[in-house]
Amino acid sequence: MARIGIAQTTFARFDMGSLAERIVRENSGCTIIRYTVPGVKDLPVAAKKLIEEHHCDIVMALGMPGSKPIDKQCAHEASQGLIQAQLLTNTHVIEVFVHEDEADNEKELVGIFRDRTIKHTRNALALLIGKNELDKYAGKGRRQGHEDVGPLLEG
Amino acid sequence: MARIGIAQTTFARFDMGSLAERIVRENSGCTIIRYTVPGVKDLPVAAKKLIEEHHCDIVMALGMPGSKPIDKQCAHEASQGLIQAQLLTNTHVIEVFVHEDEADNEKELVGIFRDRTIKHTRNALALLIGKNELDKYAGKGRRQGHEDVGPLLEG
Amino acid sequence: MARIGIAQTTFARFDMGSLAERIVRENSGCTIIRYTVPGVKDLPVAAKKLIEEHHCDIVMALGMPGSKPIDKQCAHEASQGLIQAQLLTNTHVIEVFVHEDEADNEKELVGIFRDRTIKHTRNALALLIGKNELDKYAGKGRRQGHEDVGPLLEG
Amino acid sequence: MARIGIAQTTFARFDMGSLAERIVRENSGCTIIRYTVPGVKDLPVAAKKLIEEHHCDIVMALGMPGSKPIDKQCAHEASQGLIQAQLLTNTHVIEVFVHEDEADNEKELVGIFRDRTIKHTRNALALLIGKNELDKYAGKGRRQGHEDVGPLLEG
Amino acid sequence: MARIGIAQTTFARFDMGSLAERIVRENSGCTIIRYTVPGVKDLPVAAKKLIEEHHCDIVMALGMPGSKPIDKQCAHEASQGLIQAQLLTNTHVIEVFVHEDEADNEKELVGIFRDRTIKHTRNALALLIGKNELDKYAGKGRRQGHEDVGPLLEG
Repeated sequence: MARIGIAQTTFARFDMGSLAERIVRENSGCTIIRYTVPGVKDLPVAAKKLIEEHHCDIVMALGMPGSKPIDKQCAHEASQGLIQAQLLTNTHVIEVFVHEDEADNEKELVGIFRDRTIKHTRNALALLIGKNELDKYAGKGRRQGHEDVGPLLEG
Repeated sequence: MARIGIAQTTFARFDMGSLAERIVRENSGCTIIRYTVPGVKDLPVAAKKLIEEHHCDIVMALGMPGSKPIDKQCAHEASQGLIQAQLLTNTHVIEVFVHEDEADNEKELVGIFRDRTIKHTRNALALLIGKNELDKYAGKGRRQGHEDVGPLLEG
Repeated sequence: MARIGIAQTTFARFDMGSLAERIVRENSGCTIIRYTVPGVKDLPVAAKKLIEEHHCDIVMALGMPGSKPIDKQCAHEASQGLIQAQLLTNTHVIEVFVHEDEADNEKELVGIFRDRTIKHTRNALALLIGKNELDKYAGKGRRQGHEDVGPLLEG
Repeated sequence: MARIGIAQTTFARFDMGSLAERIVRENSGCTIIRYTVPGVKDLPVAAKKLIEEHHCDIVMALGMPGSKPIDKQCAHEASQGLIQAQLLTNTHVIEVFVHEDEADNEKELVGIFRDRTIKHTRNALALLIGKNELDKYAGKGRRQGHEDVGPLLEG
Repeated sequence: MARIGIAQTTFARFDMGSLAERIVRENSGCTIIRYTVPGVKDLPVAAKKLIEEHHCDIVMALGMPGSKPIDKQCAHEASQGLIQAQLLTNTHVIEVFVHEDEADNEKELVGIFRDRTIKHTRNALALLIGKNELDKYAGKGRRQGHEDVGPLLEG
């Protein structure tokens, strides 16, 4: 039975982890391992520990970078670390970040949180099945957090 | 028989992978291993897995970064990861990124997608032959996605 | 008995280490290992040495980046290094940075120093207990240095 | 007999490799190993392969970043990768990059290509001799691509 | 007897290495190992080689980034590499960079060179003694290149 790690933060203003957990439970029999850290820069090592110490087959790294320039830099550093964690473990870590200033109001932001978390949880489940599970969507302009934009007209 | 990995994304709006696959088939007897991930930041680990778990001799990493600042940052992080993946495996990963805002309209963008994918697939095939296969073009101002610019007049 | 490393700098203008040490002593029986370096860019290797040579189970990296652009870049480099140190050791290093220009005056800045150091020391102690100790605060909009902002209304 | 790797690109508009090769031959009996890749981001792994698979004692990484912002970012990523390649091999890789927009016209740009390539080839030969071969020039304000500026007046 | 590596560049316009060497000799019986490279981006591998091949217990990396944007980027890349070198060796590398545009005139710039080099050489000697040698200055607002600013009033 596959194991999914769900790492999240106390900084975020939406409980992405519980939503991701619900989607996993509704669509699979995977075991879920939770890990909560203060902020996005703590996620890379949490992801690596979930993989190496808790034997997760894939990890979701959930976070909400703030709106200030320093927050953007933190998100950049976290993203770099998440890629390094993947390279050191040969395991996917699906980054699901929602920037606090992505929407004009809280309601819209919550909508982005929901849509992106749900769709990326499905992506994680697909990658667990195998490297070709998403082949049918290659180049199709899929989006998480918003409607798909679809392929280019002449593509 | 050499093995070429072709990693691509569902975020892209053009099916670069199928085009690359066609060029490979028309020009070689290489085995092709496909891998589809959500976005460009998922490509580094996919490339590394193609090399280490699927025994690819070279990988093409195909993607389309979006037009927003955050998309540019994602592309930067992905590129760094792709270079790290190469250094950790001593294997070339040819990055073929087309930025969504590179062209003024969709038709022109599709043209860039086609030209860059085709030429870089040929580059990958050349590198598979050996480190000196491209020697004759060194310093010749070759471009992918556009016409070659050629060497400097006094070069 | 758990061991907490406390790394700090001579560049900072507030003795974050002594405050962190007091909070640790008031809330746990942990052994404290101190390490003082010149600036934030010296913290990553100090953190790694605390973990690998002094057997710390977690490290706090305390620093105050200055207000000039070059200082911001130093902080960025230090943060990247701290994430690398964590990935190489599978151990948390809690970064506690207060930027010299975060507040309008010295009094307010001292307040940020105190609040952030105290709260992140508690975060470190929580992570020492385990990966689920902070679960109850996941997505709750917690902040260090300022009041918590709380979750989104519809979150 | 020492081995010098010369890695270059098809993107560049000047054949830096042939010039470097000529300088090496005029000044040493070193064996030269060539490697040609599409662009600067392909240079790090080429350099590492020259060192580890072709047993080079030093490598020159020759390239011409373009003038667009994305080209500058590529150069940055390539430079980071070249430094990583050195750290992973304990071997010098002398980066010789000429930016396409460094000069006002093509003639001047060719002059920079020539001067920088020649001087850095001599630097590579010096480093092959040993870590103290350049001691006599330490702090002397040497430049590649332009005239030396010399030490500060009171330095 | 401890060994101090002193790595410096021919690009710099001030002989920081000789000054550092004098301070080391006046204050310790350490053995000094010199290494001269062309520019700051060559310093990371020089530092790593000084540690791993020449058995240095600590290294000083001395350099002068130029005033152009590309020079700032080079400094950033060099700094990242120096941090990586430290993490890979668990050894301190004290970066002593003076930016060519830090002062209004050459005299003032020379003053910064002297002050920063001298103070950081003392820092290196302190770190050689041990991780707690600088404890008494933690949070004291020490500066290299300028007067100390001291701790915050309420700190």
